[in-house]
Order: sequence, then C-alpha cells, then structure tokens
Amino acid sequence: MLFRSLHSSKLQYLSLRCFSSATPHVLKPGDILKKTRVFTEEDVLQYSKVSHDSNPLHIDSATARNVGFEGPLVHGMLVASLFPHIISSHFPAAVYVSQTLNFKLPVYIGDQIVAEVQATNLRENKNRYLAKFKTRCFKNGEILVIEGEAMALLPTLTVDQ
Amino acid sequence: MLFRSLHSSKLQYLSLRCFSSATPHVLKPGDILKKTRVFTEEDVLQYSKVSHDSNPLHIDSATARNVGFEGPLVHGMLVASLFPHIISSHFPAAVYVSQTLNFKLPVYIGDQIVAEVQATNLRENKNRYLAKFKTRCFKNGEILVIEGEAMALLPTLTVDQ
Repeated sequence: MLFRSLHSSKLQYLSLRCFSSATPHVLKPGDILKKTRVFTEEDVLQYSKVSHDSNPLHIDSATARNVGFEGPLVHGMLVASLFPHIISSHFPAAVYVSQTLNFKLPVYIGDQIVAEVQATNLRENKNRYLAKFKTRCFKNGEILVIEGEAMALLPTLTVDQ
Repeated sequence: MLFRSLHSSKLQYLSLRCFSSATPHVLKPGDILKKTRVFTEEDVLQYSKVSHDSNPLHIDSATARNVGFEGPLVHGMLVASLFPHIISSHFPAAVYVSQTLNFKLPVYIGDQIVAEVQATNLRENKNRYLAKFKTRCFKNGEILVIEGEAMALLPTLTVDQ
C-alpha cells in the first residue's frame, strides 16, 4: 500500500492514492509504504531457530510474566524485519545502508502490527538513489511500538506495486 | 567468551580472562562478549521465510552480481540478530531497548562472522541494569561489516557463562 502524506505527521490525515499497473508511481518525500502482519507462535519459534536467539522472554510465559510482561514477546528484531521487507518488496534489489530502532513497547504473539516506512529524503547517487525513511510500527491501532530511521540505496524511485 | 579490555580500543590488546562456573563474573564497562557464526544458504532461506523478506539480492546470484556484489548477501538484519543473541545468552530475560546499525560492507554466505558487544555504560535502574553496548561484526578477520550501539535492560550484571 502506498500513501501520500498531505504535509501532516498525523496518520488520520494521510490520503490513500491508488496506482494502477499502467501508471507507475515515482517515490516522493512524504510517501508512506505499509505492511500489516500478525506474528504467530510458529513465527517466533522459527525466528529463534534461525537467529539462535532463545531468550526465554520469547518462549517461556512464566519468565515473561516474572519480568512484568503479559506473555511471551515477539523478538524486536523480527518485528523490525518488516522495514527492509517493505522497502525491498517495493524496490527489489534495494541495498540496506542503516537502521535505528527504539523498542518502545512489547509486541506479543497475536498483536496486529502495522509497519510503515515514510520517505523523508531522496538523493541521486551514481545512478542509484539514497533514500532516507522514517520507520515505525504500531500495534492494535495507533500504539507506537518501534520507531527509528532507515537508509537504503534504491535502484530506481519507481515503486513496484 | 568474555574478554576484558585493557583500556584500549584495539582488538589486539584485549586480554582473555577465563572464569570458572565457581567464580561468577560481574559485567564491567570495557568487557566484550563474542560469538562466531558462518551463515549458510539454508539460514538465508529460513530467514527469508520467517521475515517474508525475499529481496532477490539474498537469493539470486545474477541480481546480486548485477548490483556489483560477489554473490547473494546474507540479510543484514539476520547478521545483526547476533547482537541480541549474545546479550540474551549471557543475560537471560534481558529486554532489548534500542539498536543502531550501520551496514558498512556486504556479508556473503560462508563468511566467518565474529560479532562482539562491548559494555560501555552500566546504570542501575529499579533493580535492573540499563546497559549500553558498542556492537560490531567483523568478517574474515578484522574487516568491519556492521557497527552500531545497543541498549538493554539486564536482570543482573552477573554474566551467565
């Protein structure tokens, strides 16, 4: 999904723009790309296996509750993987340059997560484009759970729908 | 592995300290914790599945070479997952607070990656410890591929060996 901001930081003022495949859209500062995902227990298990990260907070309810959480947490880095996923799905062969991540609130298995990347600066660089994005995840509506910034080298500014 | 820095930023001046299970070690600023890993094609495939990130740079040699790389890249966020893995393996139930990541050079399947987190600041916070770490990955010796910083809430400063 690609949204265009109407020069406002408030989500409710974003306007949805629909683009047909016959009308290629060129990324502009302010544009927001989004993905929605609900992480499952199986996702957490598979991520634990591939990352070797078996922090008991992610797999053991008792440990998570002892620390003050409502239940096992989804790994923050798994939730944050939505950002490069969004960028590369709209710009195949994009090269990730940097990412900052502030994990503000826990994400639990079953939470509906909306991740969004908003273009803030675009600069041509040797036939590619260095793009800076504001990156945020919200859960169950508008509760901000992760915020940060990303930079990526894009092969083109034309958004792959 | 736990190393203690001798007040030098140069890796070659780090001195190895061995701790038996009978001698609990308390984390101090300057301490470095490390893990070594070689990412395989299967790791990249499994990470692509769980993250839904199927950027062709990670799975298609031709695309990777067209962009100027030697072959398919390991996802930067998968390599960076070594940092929370190191922290939580030595401090079970650690809560990740933030992470910055600068992806400086590509990591290829088969590269030997040494990830290290170095404690830079430790502060008591409501019966827990807010720890700041310098986080770096090196490949094939001392080639810096990822650098950044992480913050985590640790339940204790005693290092779980």
